[in-house]
Amino acid sequence: MAEVKLYNYFRSSTSYRVRIALNLKNISYQYIPIHLLQNGGEQHQLSYKTLNPMSEVPTIEHQGFILGQSLPIMEYLDESFPGAKLLPADPRTRGLIRQFCENINAFMHPLGNLKVLQYLENKHQYSQEQKNAWVQHWTNKGLIALEESAQKHGGKFVFGDNITLADICLVPQLFTCQRFGLDTKQFSKLSKIESACLSLEPFIKAHPFRQPDTPEEFRVK
Amino acid sequence: MAEVKLYNYFRSSTSYRVRIALNLKNISYQYIPIHLLQNGGEQHQLSYKTLNPMSEVPTIEHQGFILGQSLPIMEYLDESFPGAKLLPADPRTRGLIRQFCENINAFMHPLGNLKVLQYLENKHQYSQEQKNAWVQHWTNKGLIALEESAQKHGGKFVFGDNITLADICLVPQLFTCQRFGLDTKQFSKLSKIESACLSLEPFIKAHPFRQPDTPEEFRVK
Repeated sequence: MAEVKLYNYFRSSTSYRVRIALNLKNISYQYIPIHLLQNGGEQHQLSYKTLNPMSEVPTIEHQGFILGQSLPIMEYLDESFPGAKLLPADPRTRGLIRQFCENINAFMHPLGNLKVLQYLENKHQYSQEQKNAWVQHWTNKGLIALEESAQKHGGKFVFGDNITLADICLVPQLFTCQRFGLDTKQFSKLSKIESACLSLEPFIKAHPFRQPDTPEEFRVK
Repeated sequence: MAEVKLYNYFRSSTSYRVRIALNLKNISYQYIPIHLLQNGGEQHQLSYKTLNPMSEVPTIEHQGFILGQSLPIMEYLDESFPGAKLLPADPRTRGLIRQFCENINAFMHPLGNLKVLQYLENKHQYSQEQKNAWVQHWTNKGLIALEESAQKHGGKFVFGDNITLADICLVPQLFTCQRFGLDTKQFSKLSKIESACLSLEPFIKAHPFRQPDTPEEFRVK
């Protein structure tokens, strides 16, 4: 029996983060798909809202304990399970890694979120092209700061030569940026780290195009 | 000499959070104002961007160590300084508190951020009324989830009877919601907790209307 239940969606970048973290820590999990578009968005259904009052993915369930929000979930997994540590012990390095993650989580991610794009489409008749421009506007600014940080602190990964929460947040955000047409190759250090991550099993298995709910058109083998 | 330098702005809710945390932990700090509107926004000046490549407040400096993003700053302070703990030891309660904070930090806050409102004003000619409606739209949804959480877990404060990071994030977000015309009194548990917090010295001293850079028109004694 799986150790954790994961309510999530193949293409959600925050879901992608948690899948990577679970894989890195070797925690077995049951994949429960929540389709963000079908049926008016399954995240709005009462049965799911009971688990997550914000109607957001991902949510985990671990021995009866239910938790939402990807960063708190990953910190919880890191504090509660043995195995590879996603954050080092030194408070300063922890601080810098969390700052890197929040630059993504509290700035780049929310502005490109599905509900914001749906709002702009309904209110201002945004076309797909305008949505791309909106996401690119905000995420480009973020990537400049992330590249600077990675140039300064990075080795094989974002902070030195060990995988941390920073890499786990970076790779899914780059996936989203690319989806909205941003050329992320211009950020050389980030791209190099992305390639290093995408060659590793925990990242490969977590990729949006290899999930149980990935539509056929996107699926890779 | 102060233990920490705090680069911040009187009305920024994330700055307000860090001021409360510093006060609660009895850490002395030097207040360095960064005016977000004057001179094209002092956060964009090169001298500040060197400290904070995202051009955001707050930033702290502690014995040569520089850190941005309010949640990572507060976790760093909690891990590095003695005194009152802002997070309890139990991983599940830590998880729920962090989830509460991220519902604010990664959803309600970024959508009401100055740069987003400036963008909507420039791009879509948003009036003050439209900006209020935009902020209210997003934060109202968030407050419903926060009220539910506080009803479930709250005592005198958001999680039981001790102040945690959740209260530190809640009070400044309510301040912002009120500023944009939202009636927060409809959230009865959150309002009760807000009143309890606002009667305490660490919150009183941190209030936006009592800072060195508070304009005369807002200042309270």
